[in-house]
Amino acid sequence: MARSTEFMEDLCTPAFVVDLDIVKRNSEAMLERFAKLGVQVRPHMKTHKTIECADIMTRGLRRCIVVSTLAEASFYADGGYDDILYAYPLTPEKVKRCAELSERLSLFHVLVDNTVALQELKKKPLKQGKVWHVWLKLDCDTGRAGVPHSDPAALQLAKEISGAEGVELTGIYTHCGNTYKCEGELQIKAVAQETTSLVLQFVEKLKAVGIQDVKSSIGSTPSCSHPVLDMAMLSEVHPGNYVFYDAQQSLLGSCTLEDVAVRVLTRVIGHYPHRNQLLVDCGWTALSQDGANRLPTGYAIFENHPELKLVSMTQEHGAVEPVSGNLDFSQFPLGSMLSLIPYHACATAAMHPVYIVHSKGKVVGNWKPTRGW
Amino acid sequence: MARSTEFMEDLCTPAFVVDLDIVKRNSEAMLERFAKLGVQVRPHMKTHKTIECADIMTRGLRRCIVVSTLAEASFYADGGYDDILYAYPLTPEKVKRCAELSERLSLFHVLVDNTVALQELKKKPLKQGKVWHVWLKLDCDTGRAGVPHSDPAALQLAKEISGAEGVELTGIYTHCGNTYKCEGELQIKAVAQETTSLVLQFVEKLKAVGIQDVKSSIGSTPSCSHPVLDMAMLSEVHPGNYVFYDAQQSLLGSCTLEDVAVRVLTRVIGHYPHRNQLLVDCGWTALSQDGANRLPTGYAIFENHPELKLVSMTQEHGAVEPVSGNLDFSQFPLGSMLSLIPYHACATAAMHPVYIVHSKGKVVGNWKPTRGW
Repeated sequence: MARSTEFMEDLCTPAFVVDLDIVKRNSEAMLERFAKLGVQVRPHMKTHKTIECADIMTRGLRRCIVVSTLAEASFYADGGYDDILYAYPLTPEKVKRCAELSERLSLFHVLVDNTVALQELKKKPLKQGKVWHVWLKLDCDTGRAGVPHSDPAALQLAKEISGAEGVELTGIYTHCGNTYKCEGELQIKAVAQETTSLVLQFVEKLKAVGIQDVKSSIGSTPSCSHPVLDMAMLSEVHPGNYVFYDAQQSLLGSCTLEDVAVRVLTRVIGHYPHRNQLLVDCGWTALSQDGANRLPTGYAIFENHPELKLVSMTQEHGAVEPVSGNLDFSQFPLGSMLSLIPYHACATAAMHPVYIVHSKGKVVGNWKPTRGW
Repeated sequence: MARSTEFMEDLCTPAFVVDLDIVKRNSEAMLERFAKLGVQVRPHMKTHKTIECADIMTRGLRRCIVVSTLAEASFYADGGYDDILYAYPLTPEKVKRCAELSERLSLFHVLVDNTVALQELKKKPLKQGKVWHVWLKLDCDTGRAGVPHSDPAALQLAKEISGAEGVELTGIYTHCGNTYKCEGELQIKAVAQETTSLVLQFVEKLKAVGIQDVKSSIGSTPSCSHPVLDMAMLSEVHPGNYVFYDAQQSLLGSCTLEDVAVRVLTRVIGHYPHRNQLLVDCGWTALSQDGANRLPTGYAIFENHPELKLVSMTQEHGAVEPVSGNLDFSQFPLGSMLSLIPYHACATAAMHPVYIVHSKGKVVGNWKPTRGW
């Protein structure tokens, strides 16, 4: 485990470090962007899974968040959070835990995309006169979970939810994951526009059959980093990664590299001139295997060293080569520290039991995420 | 988190489950294999990182293990373990923690492959009349850490370690990671033979310059699953993955699929006939991203369902398609459980804060691994 220390250069490596000032800046930028549009931000917790970062993202209100697991839901409920949306397709064996959370919190939301899940909710009415708050997951051409927007089953399911005893159709939820295939702001905005239009059209269809006051929420860090004007007509957005950002988001055009708040610090552990390679103490347990073959510099970007490439990793070893030519080993003494910008911050954060938080070069805290399901 | 429950079918998913009987069988098979050859097994902890599994691998003796991180070293020392080999290239900032472990335990070993690390050890003599127990890492054509066996620097470094005050050259350590490029027992045995010969030749070179009583250890699950006779001349072997095995090891020829002790249990969370796909609640947080494009069935093998392929994963979602033809959705009701054989057990285990241990279909315990560095 990382030991308590004041200075970055003394940290045991590998270490996952978070720049507190950038986190705050990214968080405020998102809140201000949507305050201007009059849209509620319901930040997603899946990237960091810590109380401290959630406090920043909710400006200390501890309300109105999205989670990806029931472990996160319980962790935040235990931490004094409320109005929690568990944005994951509900299956029968999870209904009991969701009922407990619904009865414990003033507002707990679940998500469904099929009638089987709805039947399970109807079979388990909530106590204390509470109702199930249900979001219908709509697939707006991302092709993961959700009823396809063009499928008549979507409207049919909305009607069934809306008409069910003890159940309320609270909102329509869409993840525009297809923004991850974009290159640049223009393409991102095109997907954001298309998704927004499809969700708003669906809400209109609901109104046409007498189903009123249903919220709408879309999300993805790319679309919420470059919102289109029509997003002002949504009730909420639910991005998550933006609080850290990463190399992937900079490639997509969601941010610049200066906006990336996280690094993996690593040290040089070996010089192997006979194969023009050095080793660092960053394997996939520290970086994850996300981003294979996605960057010209391998699995990550070496900060201030564009000439280096992380060519391969095993559990605790990373192999580093020059992008071209011969490595100048004298520049990278044994034990010297290098800083990696991760390809995918969600995947890298998931590998770490503790995040070292720093501000202006000094360590100011440790954040401990929840894990499991 | 997984809740306490007696039956596998009631487990919250995704869940990492360990078959206790197979673990014991794999462990005993390895111990018996090398007992016949008169060679000490020093099992590697990196795959599971739990006390309970280490107890099985050491038959309750709690001595003579290998670890990959200082977090593991401290965890096992706290758990009453001794004779711990920290088999990772030593860098200056880690010397203090190694000194503490050396002074606390009766036997703590470090590993070096360069003179910088040796100088650091010499600068920090141990208290209580203790000496640093140093293993020299030799690279026998694996191409990761270690001094190349053919490099005169290897013998030179051995002499320097051996001649240094307060330092003992305890052994020569080699990881035959090149067995992971093998196909089948014959190729594995060829690498095991080559590695064994190279290490033993190096020990002879040491004797020729007057350096006696130096141990020798090679390791990798493939080579130790199919030892060659000459391995009887080694002092130790240090495999780790064998206690779980995985799909990769079965492909290499180290084991059969019946020997794989671990699974990820997952449930069907969505049916999407319009794209001939179902979703399961196993993303890369539950399986890791290891094994991409290595198996005809995608990222893992579906137990009892060779017709299924895990084609892609996001953080909490896995997309499943038939290997060919149309999916019969009626066979996979929403909420039904599927069992995945991981490609790489070390990588999958690393994603889980708790392992559910079962025997003959009943849950018999939870193992909690250490994490971090």
